[in-house]
Amino acid sequence: MFGLYALGALVSKASAASYPHDQIQKPFVKTSSGLEVTADGSGELYWDYTGGTGPLLWTKLNRKEWPLCQSGDLQSPINIDNTMKPSGFRYEWAAPLRACYNMTNTGRTIELKPTCPSIGERDVVGIMIENDWFNLDGITFHTPSEHRFLDEYYPIEAHFIMKSPKTGKITTPHTRRYAVRVVFFDVSNIHESDFWSGISPYLYSEFQRAGINNKVYNYQGSLTTPPCSQNVIWDILSVPQAVSVETYNLLKRIIKFNARYTQNTPGKVNLLSEACQKK
Amino acid sequence: MFGLYALGALVSKASAASYPHDQIQKPFVKTSSGLEVTADGSGELYWDYTGGTGPLLWTKLNRKEWPLCQSGDLQSPINIDNTMKPSGFRYEWAAPLRACYNMTNTGRTIELKPTCPSIGERDVVGIMIENDWFNLDGITFHTPSEHRFLDEYYPIEAHFIMKSPKTGKITTPHTRRYAVRVVFFDVSNIHESDFWSGISPYLYSEFQRAGINNKVYNYQGSLTTPPCSQNVIWDILSVPQAVSVETYNLLKRIIKFNARYTQNTPGKVNLLSEACQKK
Repeated sequence: MFGLYALGALVSKASAASYPHDQIQKPFVKTSSGLEVTADGSGELYWDYTGGTGPLLWTKLNRKEWPLCQSGDLQSPINIDNTMKPSGFRYEWAAPLRACYNMTNTGRTIELKPTCPSIGERDVVGIMIENDWFNLDGITFHTPSEHRFLDEYYPIEAHFIMKSPKTGKITTPHTRRYAVRVVFFDVSNIHESDFWSGISPYLYSEFQRAGINNKVYNYQGSLTTPPCSQNVIWDILSVPQAVSVETYNLLKRIIKFNARYTQNTPGKVNLLSEACQKK
Repeated sequence: MFGLYALGALVSKASAASYPHDQIQKPFVKTSSGLEVTADGSGELYWDYTGGTGPLLWTKLNRKEWPLCQSGDLQSPINIDNTMKPSGFRYEWAAPLRACYNMTNTGRTIELKPTCPSIGERDVVGIMIENDWFNLDGITFHTPSEHRFLDEYYPIEAHFIMKSPKTGKITTPHTRRYAVRVVFFDVSNIHESDFWSGISPYLYSEFQRAGINNKVYNYQGSLTTPPCSQNVIWDILSVPQAVSVETYNLLKRIIKFNARYTQNTPGKVNLLSEACQKK
C-alpha cells in the first residue's frame, strides 16, 4: 500500500489517482509576492532550507510571529550526548492498520497523517506524559537527520509528532504542547520493496517494546520549523533502524534537503543571537 | 591498499602499524584553554561543526583572522543551479600510483595527501586555469555533502584541492589561490571491497574525460573552513559517483558530520550578516 511505488508516486502528481489512500498534495509554490500557495489555497510566508529563506533568516522573514528561531534558548535540533537522562514517559500505542494513514508530499517533507479508527479506550495512537495524553498528529521525515547522536548524523530521521488536545486552555505548562519521538534510519543492504516495512514497527504496538530495548534520550526543545515554538518534549531512540538504498535515494530525491542546523545546548544562548553579539 | 580495511584502521590508532602507506594521525583534542593540540604538537584555536564552536560562531572564535566567515559575500558551500556557467578550464592530470598517497584522519575529515613521483613535464597532478598551474595539494571528504545540486544533497562530497605554488607574490588575483574540484557520491548497491575504487577514476587520467562527459559547474567562492578565504575557484561535477553502503557507513562513523551550512548566492550579503541586521 505504502510501498516504494507509492512513495515514487509523490514525485509526480499525475500518478495520484492510482493511490486512493495517498493524498497527493501539490507542494507549495513561492510567488513573486513572497507568499506561498498551499494545496488548500491558503497563503502564508514562504520559508525553506536554503539561503535567504533558510533557517538563518526565518526570524527575519517574520519578526512578529517567528522571533524564537533567533532568540529562543531551547531550540531544536541538537546533538544528543549520553549524559542526557532517559525519559520515564509511559507510551500507549494502539495497533492501527496500515491503511489508516494518508501520505502527503507537503513540499518540505513527506507526511503521514493518521486517519485511524478507534481502538480500545483511546481513539488514536499516542503517548502519556505525567497523566496528560498526547494524540499522534502525524509522522514526518527529514533527510539528512536534524538531530545528531554522539556527533554523528543519520540519512533519515522520522518524527512521530504527538499533540496535546488541550488547545486553548492547556493545564500542563506551555512546554508540553507537543511530544515528538525521533527514530533514526541508517542505510543498509536490505532490499525491502516496501517503504512501510522500515517504519511499521513504530506504528504498531511493538513501538513501546522497541523503546524499552532501545535507550531513549529526552530533552525539552522546540519545533524545528517556524514558528520554532519551545513547547516540545523530545524523545530520541538511540539505535537507528534500517532502510534500503532504493528507499533512501527515492526519499532524498523527493524531499531533497530539510534539516535545520544543530542548535546550542538547551538553556544556552541562541547561536544566532550569540553570533550577532559585538563582543 | 586503501581498502575498507585501511579506512577502518583510521578508527583506531592501534592498527596503524599494519599500514605503512597510511599516516594515522591522532585527531586534535580540545583542551581546557580552548586550544586544540594537533599531531605535530602545535596548538591552534579549536573549531568544529556543532554548537558554540560550530560554523555560526567561527568568526566569533577569532574575529581577527576569520572575519570572512561572517562578513564575506563569496562564501561556500552553496546550492548549485543549472543557470551557472560551465568552466572552460583545462585539466592536466598525470596517472599517479595508488601508493603515492598518505591517508590521514585529521579529526575533522579524512585527507589524502599526494606523495607522487614526477611524471612527464609536471611533477604532480594538477589543473591549468588561464595559464596558471595549480598543484593537487590534497583530497578531503565531507559527509553529508557541503554543496547542494538543484537543492539536493549527497551522502559524500570529495574535494580535490589544488593550490597555486605562487605563494608570497601571486601574480594571479588573490581570488585564485585554490581551485577545488567537487565530486559527489551517492549510496549504491555495489559491493566494492575497496574504498579506493570509488574515487580512483578521479585520481587517474580518466579524470579529465569524466569531466567532459559530466557537466561541470563553476563559481568563485571560499574555503568551507576557517579562515573562509575567498580565493577559491569551485568546479563541480554534476553527476554523482557510486559508493557502497559499507564504505559510506564506515566513512560516516569516522568523520561523523563535517558540512558547513549552505551560504547565500555569491555576491549577495553574507547570511549571518543579514540575520544580524536590525531591520
